[in-house]
Amino acid sequence: KGHRGLAYENAFAGVTSFMRRSLTKDLAGVDLAITGIPFDQAVTNRPGTRFGPRAIREASTLQAFDVPYGWGYNPFDAFDIVDYGDMAFDYASVAEFPARAEAHVAGILKAGAACIALGGDHSVSLALLRAHAAKHGPLALVQFDAHTDTWADDDMARIDHGTMFGKAVKTGLIDPARSVQIGIRTDNPDTMGITVLDAPFVHEHGPAATAARVREIVGEAPAYVSFDIDALDPAFAPGTGTPVWGGLSSAQAAAVLRGLRGIDMVGGDVVEVSPPYDPTGVTAIAGAHVAVELICLWGWTRRGETGAKP
Amino acid sequence: KGHRGLAYENAFAGVTSFMRRSLTKDLAGVDLAITGIPFDQAVTNRPGTRFGPRAIREASTLQAFDVPYGWGYNPFDAFDIVDYGDMAFDYASVAEFPARAEAHVAGILKAGAACIALGGDHSVSLALLRAHAAKHGPLALVQFDAHTDTWADDDMARIDHGTMFGKAVKTGLIDPARSVQIGIRTDNPDTMGITVLDAPFVHEHGPAATAARVREIVGEAPAYVSFDIDALDPAFAPGTGTPVWGGLSSAQAAAVLRGLRGIDMVGGDVVEVSPPYDPTGVTAIAGAHVAVELICLWGWTRRGETGAKP
Amino acid sequence: KGHRGLAYENAFAGVTSFMRRSLTKDLAGVDLAITGIPFDQAVTNRPGTRFGPRAIREASTLQAFDVPYGWGYNPFDAFDIVDYGDMAFDYASVAEFPARAEAHVAGILKAGAACIALGGDHSVSLALLRAHAAKHGPLALVQFDAHTDTWADDDMARIDHGTMFGKAVKTGLIDPARSVQIGIRTDNPDTMGITVLDAPFVHEHGPAATAARVREIVGEAPAYVSFDIDALDPAFAPGTGTPVWGGLSSAQAAAVLRGLRGIDMVGGDVVEVSPPYDPTGVTAIAGAHVAVELICLWGWTRRGETGAKP
Amino acid sequence: KGHRGLAYENAFAGVTSFMRRSLTKDLAGVDLAITGIPFDQAVTNRPGTRFGPRAIREASTLQAFDVPYGWGYNPFDAFDIVDYGDMAFDYASVAEFPARAEAHVAGILKAGAACIALGGDHSVSLALLRAHAAKHGPLALVQFDAHTDTWADDDMARIDHGTMFGKAVKTGLIDPARSVQIGIRTDNPDTMGITVLDAPFVHEHGPAATAARVREIVGEAPAYVSFDIDALDPAFAPGTGTPVWGGLSSAQAAAVLRGLRGIDMVGGDVVEVSPPYDPTGVTAIAGAHVAVELICLWGWTRRGETGAKP
Amino acid sequence: KGHRGLAYENAFAGVTSFMRRSLTKDLAGVDLAITGIPFDQAVTNRPGTRFGPRAIREASTLQAFDVPYGWGYNPFDAFDIVDYGDMAFDYASVAEFPARAEAHVAGILKAGAACIALGGDHSVSLALLRAHAAKHGPLALVQFDAHTDTWADDDMARIDHGTMFGKAVKTGLIDPARSVQIGIRTDNPDTMGITVLDAPFVHEHGPAATAARVREIVGEAPAYVSFDIDALDPAFAPGTGTPVWGGLSSAQAAAVLRGLRGIDMVGGDVVEVSPPYDPTGVTAIAGAHVAVELICLWGWTRRGETGAKP
Amino acid sequence: KGHRGLAYENAFAGVTSFMRRSLTKDLAGVDLAITGIPFDQAVTNRPGTRFGPRAIREASTLQAFDVPYGWGYNPFDAFDIVDYGDMAFDYASVAEFPARAEAHVAGILKAGAACIALGGDHSVSLALLRAHAAKHGPLALVQFDAHTDTWADDDMARIDHGTMFGKAVKTGLIDPARSVQIGIRTDNPDTMGITVLDAPFVHEHGPAATAARVREIVGEAPAYVSFDIDALDPAFAPGTGTPVWGGLSSAQAAAVLRGLRGIDMVGGDVVEVSPPYDPTGVTAIAGAHVAVELICLWGWTRRGETGAKP
Ligand SMILES: [Mn+2]
Ligand SMILES: [Mn+2]
Ligand SMILES: [Mn+2]
Ligand SMILES: [Mn+2]
Ligand SMILES: [Mn+2]
Ligand SMILES: [Mn+2]
Ligand SMILES: [Mn+2]
Ligand SMILES: [Mn+2]
Ligand SMILES: [Mn+2]
Ligand SMILES: [Mn+2]
Ligand SMILES: [Mn+2]
Ligand SMILES: [Mn+2]
Repeated sequence: KGHRGLAYENAFAGVTSFMRRSLTKDLAGVDLAITGIPFDQAVTNRPGTRFGPRAIREASTLQAFDVPYGWGYNPFDAFDIVDYGDMAFDYASVAEFPARAEAHVAGILKAGAACIALGGDHSVSLALLRAHAAKHGPLALVQFDAHTDTWADDDMARIDHGTMFGKAVKTGLIDPARSVQIGIRTDNPDTMGITVLDAPFVHEHGPAATAARVREIVGEAPAYVSFDIDALDPAFAPGTGTPVWGGLSSAQAAAVLRGLRGIDMVGGDVVEVSPPYDPTGVTAIAGAHVAVELICLWGWTRRGETGAKP
Repeated sequence: KGHRGLAYENAFAGVTSFMRRSLTKDLAGVDLAITGIPFDQAVTNRPGTRFGPRAIREASTLQAFDVPYGWGYNPFDAFDIVDYGDMAFDYASVAEFPARAEAHVAGILKAGAACIALGGDHSVSLALLRAHAAKHGPLALVQFDAHTDTWADDDMARIDHGTMFGKAVKTGLIDPARSVQIGIRTDNPDTMGITVLDAPFVHEHGPAATAARVREIVGEAPAYVSFDIDALDPAFAPGTGTPVWGGLSSAQAAAVLRGLRGIDMVGGDVVEVSPPYDPTGVTAIAGAHVAVELICLWGWTRRGETGAKP
Repeated sequence: KGHRGLAYENAFAGVTSFMRRSLTKDLAGVDLAITGIPFDQAVTNRPGTRFGPRAIREASTLQAFDVPYGWGYNPFDAFDIVDYGDMAFDYASVAEFPARAEAHVAGILKAGAACIALGGDHSVSLALLRAHAAKHGPLALVQFDAHTDTWADDDMARIDHGTMFGKAVKTGLIDPARSVQIGIRTDNPDTMGITVLDAPFVHEHGPAATAARVREIVGEAPAYVSFDIDALDPAFAPGTGTPVWGGLSSAQAAAVLRGLRGIDMVGGDVVEVSPPYDPTGVTAIAGAHVAVELICLWGWTRRGETGAKP
Repeated sequence: KGHRGLAYENAFAGVTSFMRRSLTKDLAGVDLAITGIPFDQAVTNRPGTRFGPRAIREASTLQAFDVPYGWGYNPFDAFDIVDYGDMAFDYASVAEFPARAEAHVAGILKAGAACIALGGDHSVSLALLRAHAAKHGPLALVQFDAHTDTWADDDMARIDHGTMFGKAVKTGLIDPARSVQIGIRTDNPDTMGITVLDAPFVHEHGPAATAARVREIVGEAPAYVSFDIDALDPAFAPGTGTPVWGGLSSAQAAAVLRGLRGIDMVGGDVVEVSPPYDPTGVTAIAGAHVAVELICLWGWTRRGETGAKP
Repeated sequence: KGHRGLAYENAFAGVTSFMRRSLTKDLAGVDLAITGIPFDQAVTNRPGTRFGPRAIREASTLQAFDVPYGWGYNPFDAFDIVDYGDMAFDYASVAEFPARAEAHVAGILKAGAACIALGGDHSVSLALLRAHAAKHGPLALVQFDAHTDTWADDDMARIDHGTMFGKAVKTGLIDPARSVQIGIRTDNPDTMGITVLDAPFVHEHGPAATAARVREIVGEAPAYVSFDIDALDPAFAPGTGTPVWGGLSSAQAAAVLRGLRGIDMVGGDVVEVSPPYDPTGVTAIAGAHVAVELICLWGWTRRGETGAKP
Repeated sequence: KGHRGLAYENAFAGVTSFMRRSLTKDLAGVDLAITGIPFDQAVTNRPGTRFGPRAIREASTLQAFDVPYGWGYNPFDAFDIVDYGDMAFDYASVAEFPARAEAHVAGILKAGAACIALGGDHSVSLALLRAHAAKHGPLALVQFDAHTDTWADDDMARIDHGTMFGKAVKTGLIDPARSVQIGIRTDNPDTMGITVLDAPFVHEHGPAATAARVREIVGEAPAYVSFDIDALDPAFAPGTGTPVWGGLSSAQAAAVLRGLRGIDMVGGDVVEVSPPYDPTGVTAIAGAHVAVELICLWGWTRRGETGAKP
């Protein structure tokens, strides 16, 4: 129960599965699968996010002995959560990637498990949204980001980490009226109907008011939470491809995430952690924390469900 | 128009002129020239700011596709802005430097362009102030810094990044009654009549109140805005020579700078970015953002002028 | 007077004693001795704090020309403060370490000097508490930390940086009713009677309210202030063994420390600075600042005492 | 003449064109164009070579005042050599890249200039070979590498930095009987007819004997020299995607390159410099040196030609 | 067969077991188990080797697609080789470590598998020697190192990475007449009967002569090969605790190791890889190569044995 | 005797005097004083050598327990050797530096001690040569360097790390007929009569032949040995201002230095170690080793003198 990995490993040792979860491709009875999508071939500037899953897993070993802070329950006790490993693909045939990524995630969902993904660059969210929308219908997108990623691009063959949410709106994967972007601080005149709570909004109104506004927008809709690590300020997340100053602190991000409890999160991801640009390791540490907060948020509304383990 | 450089360059490629501006020594019709002053021979502790202009230019390429955030206009469309390249000088004849730096900047101003400089250590601001005061008369200094840089030093031949603003007051380049220092958190009992809004002031009162107070002090005077990157906390700007804890966040700095709109900024600089101490690159990223905010601030009051391009 | 070291050293040069204090084993007439405890063999994850004292000393040279900010007095003028050097010990006989560390500190206290220690991992605080409690009786612990370090462990031979404050409560070294932990953001259901002002508390209520609450808890009790650098967010202190997101900013920490003035601080430490994980150096800079703030806090109530040098 | 860039720039300043050459798209009268191919989307392991051209250019500024060592002539005086800038392309349409890269290089060759390219990952050499073979016919490949890069792959749409030389042999771009690989130290049973002088060969026989053997194999054939920086040992070139121990020293590489004088080199490249994995910068420094040696080698046989400038 | 791990993983992705071997505690039918001993509490200077196994595993993924170079056979096909994971232990009870480490290794040997260990600091070799000598009797030690590690120390309770081979000689674990140290370049007048082929010897006589001399000394004795990564020069292995200039190149080390083929190696280790001091990663890469060479050397004489898989 | 510092310090702890020597300004009875000249304001490219003395001292602590290798005697036992600390000077009055540096060294020599200096950039050698030539007359210069540093410059007021040996020849401080440069690999047509044994010479002929040739050139003349760390290849010394590929290995350098035994070395320096460009620390380690080899070389001929301590 709990799909704990080896009986005991030192924090600094052993196989670095996410949060020391069992590393398995067997999803029978699994409530939630963590999987890595180590793709970075769609970035406009600095690559390296292919090593994001590896670094986030390693950083997570530091938290593996602790009950997540600030939630009042332990999702790793309440649910069967496993590390499903990384998606494998042909790095030399980039055009084939999105369909394979979608199939990878659809396979997890079909097995009855929910999925939280570790990126990879932000373009991978499009495949994730496709798989989730196929199951849940149009989704409320809750996006933490410095960028809107809704730049116009009608060429569906282009794989770009700055345009995929525009494509997601256009193809009906997400409902812009139920969607919200938090931490934005780059210009994009066409928000495609998505509400923007930009970084200055968070700094002025605080995380509690921000979370309240997000909950209001999302309502009862099934929600997909996508956390681009560049939502954080470069001080908190230097290891990313397109950093922008004036971002959120980790304390603000944690408070907003915890403040979302009650929304119907059905899936999510943390993306854009780029280890080669992270010599201090703080970005991977932040990424691992985001992943754990997402797990807590996902599990919060499911704690009392039949089948959950209270 | 707009003096865009090459037709298209990937963010990660090409010649790294500032914001992809044309790199030229021809100032005909130019409204604003960005120039580097790669001098670091006046520092008390860690050198390296001679590489500041190079690093800030490279970091700026990440913003070159975006309209600056939070201003409501694009100065790169409204004005002719070029990259004038770096000042060249004899590193082995340090005593000759200040006069040459002043002549370099005076040449830009004489050509009818305004100038925003990329340092270099903070000592270069003295040459910049001399050139600007020769044109505009005594200036209101708006200084972001952890240090006052007004330490007493009657030896005008000493070139020191901790004493030049004392010399600037004494020689009438700046009007202390119209000048203000923001972010200070080191002791200097003699402020020489300059108002100090120290870092605790900003933390307690917030950036909006800080900006309002600055505008009040500066009034209608022609203002020179000098941004020592160590105004930011070491978390946000580790790559600098004399870091001090308890500094501003990048979000606070951005909000103060944007809150200054309306002052009559005639010139400015961003200094003390030291790339050898910046393995994560966040300091250069912050420096490039400061430079863009300064450009926006400079252009704000000029948007409607005859000769400006709205 | 003031036990200044060499007559003059450039900030970047010379022997790096703490704040350029005299480096001496002679404590005659000394009010306060700074000593390093370079031990890192009790860490659960990343080692390296054995180099903490060396790095903090080096970082302190940047502040050696300045009067500490925000206190209104200069403790280095008011008191005789020296650098007592590091404790030496047999790294290959770990079990012997705690008794030797306690003896090292007891020797300082017996000579009539107060002691502020530079760690080292947090386990060294147990030896420090023993030596101080032997002199002052049960202490009020003021602990800045991401972790409570009160995990249950009845094996007194284990040397663990996560359990020593539990042992300190059990052995009567500290009075939990007078003790308080600030910045906590990891779970530990058994706080052993110590008040916890967790990181969200500080973020929501601010440093002034936090300091007021701490002073209220501590009251008149002799207080020991232990600052685990991981109380700061990883952005501000990446170079530490067990970083946790959502921590304090350096500005918050400075404000809380300055807000404690008036408590009867009898000793303290700054621990968990791990230079190998600090490529930007900001952690050592923060550590040096914490040490100076602790000195100011220690000296504040003693300024008027007989024997002090006003 | 000589297409020197600005009149004077400090080594640490100014625009970082390769060796301070003029940065121009005008190839009239140009003998040799240096161009960057900042592509890294075909790597099996670590990306980052998209920043290779930028880093090599910057490292080259250190050599810009010197006559290349060990050649007895200065190619920058003898020939018109310019920096043609980087190829621009759509990072989000990877499949289109090879044809565009080939067209980019073909354009240079058609203008009458020779071309030496700065990678980018090694896959870019296929486009370069195509453009050169179209002009010169089947080429002798002189490849410095830890890997043969001749792995079987019949899918011409795959863009892979480990298979392009197999494709080059199969499509007749290179003549294996006239081709040689130097520094190999990974296994590939099928060498496709290319002679392998592996790293142990160089270590045992020395650079002079190695160069003699290469000249013997190449003979009079038009030669393309491709230098994968991982031919060097990781100590000399840590900043690369697929490092292998037991490689060449920089002294060995320099001696072999200088020992090739007399072959009819018609073009070449230096590839696989990955700046994000090069915190010491030595890989970019080595890459800049390789580029200069290639220029010297290219120019050696052309010194006396009509049109050359002796 | 071959105990390959997952069917396919990208080099940059997936669980980083050593050379993608199966990660298992089941040793039935296993010929060789690779295990990590992540202990670093016995070092005289810089710690960090507790992360050695993790870093070596990660670095090994780069070689996982290749047949080891220069051996003419593939041990991963010839034998069942698994990753046995890391030894777990109580970091807070250091004195208990050696016995537990010995039991850990003895368990592997008792199961019928050979063992090659990834350190950890060099002190762990004593536990490894104890377990191996218990099975094989007194061993010939083939030690690559900058240091002899035979310093006198009669206190068997001290756990020191500079004295364990002295203890090994005294307690009869190794036969000094059959033992040899390669690469030494620090002084120790008492070699305890072990032959020293110091670094100058290797530089003057070359790796082939060095290997021949080692084979001569070892003869038919069962040999334990211990490779302290500091045998390599700091250029090739900066990430280690006690680096010394004038060391071996990786090419020399590889050639000596390959030249040892024919000795009866029964076990071995690679130790002293310290990732926090390895920002370029070359030390971990070297460590992974050493481990593979050791596997090849171990397997060489066993290729034809009954039970081996040719 | 031996001027050992504190009784015992851990390698990782304590005040980092050079080789744990006493740190003193009292030269009574001292045979040799080590002093730092932390000046870096004369460099053409990257600064940072002002931190060279600090880093070399710290790196030397690793060797402080060992007898220097390969010499057969211990100079620290044979002579009274102290750490004289760093020269202090006004960084803001660069023109005054050379005279002050010369006076600093002259003071040491006048006190009867010999002097070996830790730079600092190479320009400091001019002041050192002046002080030594004043005492010993024209000197034989033994210079290890990638550059000749004899560029023409008749302006004696310029302080440049590329011209000082030209000035030294012209002003008669060194006798070019008795002088030799080792490791050169940048072009300078005017060697001013000094013999050049360039890097290819060392690689082809080996260190023993190189040392023999140096001894022949120097003969009986009083010799000054100046070791620019960039004589080493960037792999061995990345942390320097003007690295050039193709340099010496540390093993070659050590062998040449040891091979010089018998020359009459009267003084020397190790310069151009630039810590900000040395994230792996190998350059400082190499610098500390060079310093110890220089001490051994200096002491070798003096072992039997009256006054020496055998
Ligand atoms: Mn983003
Ligand atoms: Mn995004
Ligand atoms: Mn400042
Ligand atoms: Mn300043
Ligand atoms: Mn803690
Ligand atoms: Mn703690
Ligand atoms: Mn290769
Ligand atoms: Mn290749
Ligand atoms: Mn060793
Ligand atoms: Mn060893
Ligand atoms: Mn040099
Ligand atoms: Mn030099």
